[in-house]
Amino acid sequence: MPHKRSVFFVSDRTGITVEMLGNSLLTQFEEVEFKRVTLPFIDNIEKVHDVISQIEAMHHESGKRPLVFTSLTEDTLRVALAQANAMVLDVFDRFIVPLEEELGVKSSHAIGRSHSAGNFKDYNQRIEAVNYTLAHDDGITNRNLDDADIILVGVSRSGKTPTCLYLALQFGIKAANYPLIPEDLEKLKLPPSLLPLKSKVWGLSIMPDRLAQIRQERKPDSKYASLENCRWEVATAERLMESAGLTYLNSTTKSIEELATTILHEARLDRRVY
Amino acid sequence: MPHKRSVFFVSDRTGITVEMLGNSLLTQFEEVEFKRVTLPFIDNIEKVHDVISQIEAMHHESGKRPLVFTSLTEDTLRVALAQANAMVLDVFDRFIVPLEEELGVKSSHAIGRSHSAGNFKDYNQRIEAVNYTLAHDDGITNRNLDDADIILVGVSRSGKTPTCLYLALQFGIKAANYPLIPEDLEKLKLPPSLLPLKSKVWGLSIMPDRLAQIRQERKPDSKYASLENCRWEVATAERLMESAGLTYLNSTTKSIEELATTILHEARLDRRVY
Repeated sequence: MPHKRSVFFVSDRTGITVEMLGNSLLTQFEEVEFKRVTLPFIDNIEKVHDVISQIEAMHHESGKRPLVFTSLTEDTLRVALAQANAMVLDVFDRFIVPLEEELGVKSSHAIGRSHSAGNFKDYNQRIEAVNYTLAHDDGITNRNLDDADIILVGVSRSGKTPTCLYLALQFGIKAANYPLIPEDLEKLKLPPSLLPLKSKVWGLSIMPDRLAQIRQERKPDSKYASLENCRWEVATAERLMESAGLTYLNSTTKSIEELATTILHEARLDRRVY
Repeated sequence: MPHKRSVFFVSDRTGITVEMLGNSLLTQFEEVEFKRVTLPFIDNIEKVHDVISQIEAMHHESGKRPLVFTSLTEDTLRVALAQANAMVLDVFDRFIVPLEEELGVKSSHAIGRSHSAGNFKDYNQRIEAVNYTLAHDDGITNRNLDDADIILVGVSRSGKTPTCLYLALQFGIKAANYPLIPEDLEKLKLPPSLLPLKSKVWGLSIMPDRLAQIRQERKPDSKYASLENCRWEVATAERLMESAGLTYLNSTTKSIEELATTILHEARLDRRVY
């Protein structure tokens, strides 16, 4: 029988890091069901006391002591939170002290250095990459296509747009995408504008039944969404990509993060944004 | 004098979590300069040996032992990597053992549970949110505007699009955005289509000199980009948002992550995607 355990993610800033770390660890416990609460911007003692009340209430309600992942940086806040009747996993504590020893310097214990504004260069890189990616979504334009870091091709609805947006937002990579339309497929050739840029071109593929399911939601009972047509498009697109010598990834078996990271890594690009 | 220290992020999957955690910790050491290398998809012993060679080479080159943040889940790989002549910070090690004790179950030690595909519901939520957000970028359409979870308003180039895309991609939130154009500003009124949806509307503002700088890159020496015009637009937009009773955030002092998280939190929305 699965037992539900409550989990709090407590941060003095966005909570993104501690939430991601905690969730990543929790996926290792498949048989346990978790109830998650994220509490960002906990940056004074009153808020910490309020967090403790919420933790205690949840403890009382569920009969099990909650897990608390925290990355509070200020000592007084961390010490206060550690008093909660819960299992407090303090990320800061477990890593900062050994890092201070290794680096031979004290940490700044300053709130909110990660995911905070102030780095104009990073911000501009991201915005520029997002703008570029939106302007070059779905083959809208060939203008400045050679400025792209990456060009993704694949049949309609194979996952190109979200992968490109992820590359732009998270890594500051300019990612264009280009649909392989039935005309390209019939010729078994890449669109001519991509030929001189082949070293930047990556393919996406997808399983035909999944593609049919996605297209069905957009254009129910169309030829476009039929399993037969999806099978033909996918098989032909894969033949095309193989004969063009492209590497292609499958968006059915990989998440957006995995697709984006794999492409970044295999293209030997460095992320532009931290 | 700043000393440069090399840092490796080693993961059997994307490396996104360990990279984010590591970077977040490193921001606490401002006076140290770091050289970062991310090595994702390290999922067999040959790859671990290759990683160790890279670490040793960097050690030799820099004369300082590298930091290694790792989240390898397989015991044989973790044990092998721990032999590297480096400071190995093993995320898995430091958290999984106490979690196993607390939860009274063994972890699966399985590779690649986070950021991996397989959760169709999550994937569909994200794709649907991204499609919605793209279709409702920059006031393109009012169709289905009431399906939005969030509607962002602000002057042109105040950061609406990247914030909306972040909300969609990371949290599965449907985020529309609507520019406040000079016509709205002159009337000091929200666009009429937004009035019935006011509870979902959030404002973005920006510092005028920063806005002028961003616009200058897009339309150099235009009235649109002039500091005088930017000052007028920002001041008027803020008056408009105040009189409409909207909460607004400043994109000059907050990062995209902070804007998105603050809105998610204050609007009391739960993320739809983990």
